[in-house]
Amino acid sequence: MTDRVSNENRSSSLRSPQSERYAELRRRTGELSAPLPVEDQVIQSMPDASPTKWHLAHTTWFFETFVLEPFADGYTRFHDQFSHLFNSYYRGAGAFFERGRRGVIGRPTVSEVLDYRKHVDHAMARHFDDRSRREEWGPIVEIGLHHEQQHQELLLTDIKHLLSCNPLHPAYRTDCATTNWSGGDVEAPEPGWLRICGDVYEIGAEGSQFSFDNERPRHAVLLDDFQIACHPVSCGQFLEFIDDGGYDTPRWWLSEGWETRVLQDWQAPMYWQRRGDRWETMTLGGLRPVDPRQPVCHISYFEADAYARWAGARLPTEAEWEVASRQCRVRGNFAESERFHPMAIDGEAETQRPQRFFGDVWEWTSSAYAPYPGFEPWDDTLGEYNGKFMCNQYVLRGGSCATPQSHIRHSYRNFFPAHARWQFSGLRLARQSTTS
Amino acid sequence: MTDRVSNENRSSSLRSPQSERYAELRRRTGELSAPLPVEDQVIQSMPDASPTKWHLAHTTWFFETFVLEPFADGYTRFHDQFSHLFNSYYRGAGAFFERGRRGVIGRPTVSEVLDYRKHVDHAMARHFDDRSRREEWGPIVEIGLHHEQQHQELLLTDIKHLLSCNPLHPAYRTDCATTNWSGGDVEAPEPGWLRICGDVYEIGAEGSQFSFDNERPRHAVLLDDFQIACHPVSCGQFLEFIDDGGYDTPRWWLSEGWETRVLQDWQAPMYWQRRGDRWETMTLGGLRPVDPRQPVCHISYFEADAYARWAGARLPTEAEWEVASRQCRVRGNFAESERFHPMAIDGEAETQRPQRFFGDVWEWTSSAYAPYPGFEPWDDTLGEYNGKFMCNQYVLRGGSCATPQSHIRHSYRNFFPAHARWQFSGLRLARQSTTS
Amino acid sequence: MTDRVSNENRSSSLRSPQSERYAELRRRTGELSAPLPVEDQVIQSMPDASPTKWHLAHTTWFFETFVLEPFADGYTRFHDQFSHLFNSYYRGAGAFFERGRRGVIGRPTVSEVLDYRKHVDHAMARHFDDRSRREEWGPIVEIGLHHEQQHQELLLTDIKHLLSCNPLHPAYRTDCATTNWSGGDVEAPEPGWLRICGDVYEIGAEGSQFSFDNERPRHAVLLDDFQIACHPVSCGQFLEFIDDGGYDTPRWWLSEGWETRVLQDWQAPMYWQRRGDRWETMTLGGLRPVDPRQPVCHISYFEADAYARWAGARLPTEAEWEVASRQCRVRGNFAESERFHPMAIDGEAETQRPQRFFGDVWEWTSSAYAPYPGFEPWDDTLGEYNGKFMCNQYVLRGGSCATPQSHIRHSYRNFFPAHARWQFSGLRLARQSTTS
Amino acid sequence: MTDRVSNENRSSSLRSPQSERYAELRRRTGELSAPLPVEDQVIQSMPDASPTKWHLAHTTWFFETFVLEPFADGYTRFHDQFSHLFNSYYRGAGAFFERGRRGVIGRPTVSEVLDYRKHVDHAMARHFDDRSRREEWGPIVEIGLHHEQQHQELLLTDIKHLLSCNPLHPAYRTDCATTNWSGGDVEAPEPGWLRICGDVYEIGAEGSQFSFDNERPRHAVLLDDFQIACHPVSCGQFLEFIDDGGYDTPRWWLSEGWETRVLQDWQAPMYWQRRGDRWETMTLGGLRPVDPRQPVCHISYFEADAYARWAGARLPTEAEWEVASRQCRVRGNFAESERFHPMAIDGEAETQRPQRFFGDVWEWTSSAYAPYPGFEPWDDTLGEYNGKFMCNQYVLRGGSCATPQSHIRHSYRNFFPAHARWQFSGLRLARQSTTS
Repeated sequence: MTDRVSNENRSSSLRSPQSERYAELRRRTGELSAPLPVEDQVIQSMPDASPTKWHLAHTTWFFETFVLEPFADGYTRFHDQFSHLFNSYYRGAGAFFERGRRGVIGRPTVSEVLDYRKHVDHAMARHFDDRSRREEWGPIVEIGLHHEQQHQELLLTDIKHLLSCNPLHPAYRTDCATTNWSGGDVEAPEPGWLRICGDVYEIGAEGSQFSFDNERPRHAVLLDDFQIACHPVSCGQFLEFIDDGGYDTPRWWLSEGWETRVLQDWQAPMYWQRRGDRWETMTLGGLRPVDPRQPVCHISYFEADAYARWAGARLPTEAEWEVASRQCRVRGNFAESERFHPMAIDGEAETQRPQRFFGDVWEWTSSAYAPYPGFEPWDDTLGEYNGKFMCNQYVLRGGSCATPQSHIRHSYRNFFPAHARWQFSGLRLARQSTTS
Repeated sequence: MTDRVSNENRSSSLRSPQSERYAELRRRTGELSAPLPVEDQVIQSMPDASPTKWHLAHTTWFFETFVLEPFADGYTRFHDQFSHLFNSYYRGAGAFFERGRRGVIGRPTVSEVLDYRKHVDHAMARHFDDRSRREEWGPIVEIGLHHEQQHQELLLTDIKHLLSCNPLHPAYRTDCATTNWSGGDVEAPEPGWLRICGDVYEIGAEGSQFSFDNERPRHAVLLDDFQIACHPVSCGQFLEFIDDGGYDTPRWWLSEGWETRVLQDWQAPMYWQRRGDRWETMTLGGLRPVDPRQPVCHISYFEADAYARWAGARLPTEAEWEVASRQCRVRGNFAESERFHPMAIDGEAETQRPQRFFGDVWEWTSSAYAPYPGFEPWDDTLGEYNGKFMCNQYVLRGGSCATPQSHIRHSYRNFFPAHARWQFSGLRLARQSTTS
Repeated sequence: MTDRVSNENRSSSLRSPQSERYAELRRRTGELSAPLPVEDQVIQSMPDASPTKWHLAHTTWFFETFVLEPFADGYTRFHDQFSHLFNSYYRGAGAFFERGRRGVIGRPTVSEVLDYRKHVDHAMARHFDDRSRREEWGPIVEIGLHHEQQHQELLLTDIKHLLSCNPLHPAYRTDCATTNWSGGDVEAPEPGWLRICGDVYEIGAEGSQFSFDNERPRHAVLLDDFQIACHPVSCGQFLEFIDDGGYDTPRWWLSEGWETRVLQDWQAPMYWQRRGDRWETMTLGGLRPVDPRQPVCHISYFEADAYARWAGARLPTEAEWEVASRQCRVRGNFAESERFHPMAIDGEAETQRPQRFFGDVWEWTSSAYAPYPGFEPWDDTLGEYNGKFMCNQYVLRGGSCATPQSHIRHSYRNFFPAHARWQFSGLRLARQSTTS
Repeated sequence: MTDRVSNENRSSSLRSPQSERYAELRRRTGELSAPLPVEDQVIQSMPDASPTKWHLAHTTWFFETFVLEPFADGYTRFHDQFSHLFNSYYRGAGAFFERGRRGVIGRPTVSEVLDYRKHVDHAMARHFDDRSRREEWGPIVEIGLHHEQQHQELLLTDIKHLLSCNPLHPAYRTDCATTNWSGGDVEAPEPGWLRICGDVYEIGAEGSQFSFDNERPRHAVLLDDFQIACHPVSCGQFLEFIDDGGYDTPRWWLSEGWETRVLQDWQAPMYWQRRGDRWETMTLGGLRPVDPRQPVCHISYFEADAYARWAGARLPTEAEWEVASRQCRVRGNFAESERFHPMAIDGEAETQRPQRFFGDVWEWTSSAYAPYPGFEPWDDTLGEYNGKFMCNQYVLRGGSCATPQSHIRHSYRNFFPAHARWQFSGLRLARQSTTS
């Protein structure tokens, strides 16, 4: 009963006026950047990552470009050149500044970017009072809000990468990513398995609730019997793979995965470093010991796939994952906890119940990112949001400790190239059912 | 009637003793290399391609390593170092010479490699008389024969690439790739569409006939209603895309596709070059005018996908393709015709009947290359044959004018990265059925 | 008379106590960085350039490492890791942080680096009172001061590069690099020529005044008769080369120069951009019209050499330059003027008197950077200061508008690779004397 | 007396009719390529090297382009496209085929190239009878003959590199590069030193004898007293540097040299490989033990410079080398010996007399390759022969065991970039004279 009520509360909160959600989400982005000195907000530590300042500006550019410019009469742009500087990749919205060069732009300063945010937020606040053509711009604002949440997560993962490059091991916030692990030995118990019967299921988003275009249309899929682990693979489990020479044994690896491992000299998940006979890992709270009870993260598709093969299992397909995940509600260790690191799964009993489909770590699936049958991209320029990336990427599901909880759905599809490791990405094992 | 008879002959030839098929296929490889001067057999024109000499040696190495060494008592290796020089990528079979350096090896000479072939063929001939453990080595020989056929095709496509690098435009054989096209205007008629009803179908190989491991297990797939074009997209159709600025319009392209197009400055299919107001293309017969009635080939997945989007259609999935292809038998313009180029589809009536699923051009599907549910790689080292490449590749179906006909099945899966263009790769359109 | 007096003043200021000069120079570095927002002080815009923050820290590291650590009893390092983070390239001083990654280090913050400077300056101030072993550390402090001045110049040229990457064209200080040029036509008069008679001359530093090790020993050189232009090549002169197709004519260029030009698509000096029918250039004061009367700068050795060949002349050797420069005292448009851009040479008469050997622009010579006969590098780790770069670099002479005046001597040798353009580098023509 | 006579004979042979020398030299090129199978003649093993076939064709192209086309009435080109295919870098002679792609050209075949040579040799033979404008084309033929000799040497060094890439270690000719070294310990005696007094000397070519443009004009240079070793550094001496950790000690190395060493993982001279506790080296005769008495070769400028610094000495300048070399005549272990490898210096007495300035190994000097004062390049397109490479290269002197003896003069200047190692390049030490 309680759940039902709280669920209704949540739903009603979801149904709170868009303007309120706008204000709250935009404020939240500011809060996330607040602990960072200006210096950290400017730097681009690798081509895949973006400076904090850029995230702050680009999300603002989104509302300016797709809502205010076309729909708010008399709106004046904050700066002529920002449409060029802070466009990410929408070719329909004009030329854009080279992605890998986002870190050479000292100006606008952080303070000017915060002014830009205020300028746009102010204009949006006024615009929310305007009812005309709301059916047109309302849905775009909705997209903008989910877009803002995506960049809240990227802001955190990009900053984590940046801080990890610094030999001083600075923390984002020293009060996060803490662990109560004493450092003693921990056995990694075999997780329980959830059995799902083969059948025709439906997956994908339906109804009028918000979803991205790539989650639709809802459609039928045919699944065989399969089993899926009760929880994501833990650091303790993954250490057995490392200790068994997993990183030195080509037979577990995809060919391209092995080449990548050799070229980039991977010996362990990203951010891990050995100190004496134990492992430490860079977290948003600074260097921490690797807690064997926590879900492993910052691994590539290649490592997830190699681990699964070594373990005599496989990755689930995204359809299998989605169907299995319905055993759980969308709750968990999300960004709202401000823990910003996966949480330990403690006690053997704990490992036997289905859990953690949501939060903690994104889970790699074996599914190449592809359009659902009958996929229709959004109209016009926003059609570039998802569809054009459906190539050489793999689907991840469930959100992580850096994802806002309200951003995630059972049908939510995230995607990254197989070599990407800087997201909070882990895995959950699946396997064929040996008996029906 | 004649066809029926010849078909029976062929079938019986398929059922001919393995030793006979071995002898015939091995001789055929030699025939394919015969028109080439020694100079052309040595060169590696790009890292993806291999010298003819290497193909001749590597296919021989396969039989030596996987059949003679383990099963033929008293077999003596032709040369100690060849197991290193001519291993392609089997880590289970020891170290291998760097792929991109295959063209810096002048020795062994072509003549020595031909001696190596004779040495192994002689040993194989004797070995076929030996019945012991035949149930073990017989299937490996079968794989070796299909492996030989794959390299027969690669030998041709690699040589085509090599010759295309030469400003002298040399031909492989001047009597192939001819066309009777007069150069006049040709309308590209809209092809007819074949309608397939949605249902649960089975795809994949079954029974005891040879197939690669990646074609199994046969399994059920759920298909919606769909339509598929009666024949592959022609050069005439593709020219309309070019003339409509298709190569300059990012909206048709996947993001990675557009980046590749810009970086490599693609303006048309590979090997095409404009001369005045018409297009010519490099063929194995030398420079030829682009015949608008021929299926377009040497396009990447990116170009196939962009064309389909421009045309208001899409690529078929491999399951759709396989189900639809059952309308045709495995006949067509294969390597046996020695035409070595796609053949014109002539006359409007001709465009309205389902055809050309087999031969002419490999057809890109929208399916990422992935294991079938329950996939089991072959045992031991041969398990590296297919499975470890199941990442960032797309499935092509149906064989081409460079593929031996007996190599192809309805369930046959070929695969290449999305940017690859040097195979005879084209496409066939599909679309959702608007009405059942 | 006035000159003589002021000269004595300057000399006496040069003889002012080292501690005073230390204080003044260190303060000056701070002044140069002051106009920059924190954002601009953090970024590395290319591998050859360094962040302002890094310059501030590295120059401080120099005094800490080479003076305080070995000579100041009881000195406590500011931070353990700074010796690693802010070592540039002295292998004798331990490992150093990768040069091209200086821009991914957000921490220490600018404010912490300024604290670091205060810490070291405070310790140095106390140390200056300590007379013991002064004969050892006094010369090292002297080197440190000249080192500080070199980084003052690099700070400016690196910032110029950084600002030029920004499409907003921000200025370092809007009150510098101004010009009174009206935009009308200006004829570029042929400069007068200074004739020097062939003889044995001595070049290089002598006496007890400070010089770098690479300026010694003073030694005899044999020169032929030669002529050298009265002033550096002007933008107006250089525009004639551009307008004559100089950038499209391989015959003027060294082979490697031409390859570089093609690869990097050079069409004009660095920072120039055409707007309509005129040229603008990025300066430290923002975008400015190209003033034809100013010495051309931001050209590579390759462009200097090509221009000279086109002009029927050549570059001077460094010996020729040094001998000729003795016609002038070390005065001119240096960093002290805070103009930070070359100054116009106005009026035809003006072009006929020898001038501008010092300040305005560094002048490329045809001399490869090499040790003087009998060269002895400084002792120990400081021996790495100059000698190990004597390869594939060319000597520039005379200092620029970004160089502190007191840093320059007739014998001063600067050096950069032939493709470098981001320094204020120009050229002066020389030619053989046709008659003795 | 004998010497004098033979010298006169040689001179008279030098004065033999040009047509005879043409025929002999051209035949010699053919002889050098004869031991190679066609396979080895086609391959380009690295961008700096060229296929044998290309050398055969390019030297022929030289005579066709610069002699026959402009001067031989009625001459018919062998093939229209060869002027494009076999132009090396003369922009004045039209477009040229990309240097790094010389190895992807299977056609023309080796046999067709030999026909091309015959065609041009036949036309040249006829042309030699034509006296008209001989004063114009005679000197060009002379250049062509020296050009041919340069490519004879490159043919050998390029083939050596190619064969070294092959794990089979094939030999060019098994009867060359032999050694009588027993494998026992050899002490490397300190070589004697030749003392030269400081003075004004003249260097460079003079008179009417052939020289390249870069050897002129003869001009005065001022030298200090110096000493120069009696012979080149031996493998035994160089092994002491290796054994002393020379390859692991940055202080001996130029900065760019050290970076190159690390990047390319140099541990010893090129072609050396350790087998157990001894060193072997690839030679044109196949793998051979490193004979400690032979001059070390296949080292870069960086290694030569590092060795010299370690040894407490330095490299000579090219002027010092030329002046010192006048102690010897141009005799030695040149290509004519068909030894194709440096020859042992045997016996301690032997090390005390000045020798081996010529033949055996090219000797790196410390002189950057630059124009002599008053340098005038040849006219027109041939002006590109030398001058445009005067940048980022170092001068080598004396010729090697792969150089034709008649090609070398005291004033001869060879040049390569500091990292180049595939030539037979060694060094000779110099040092300042401590007492006059």
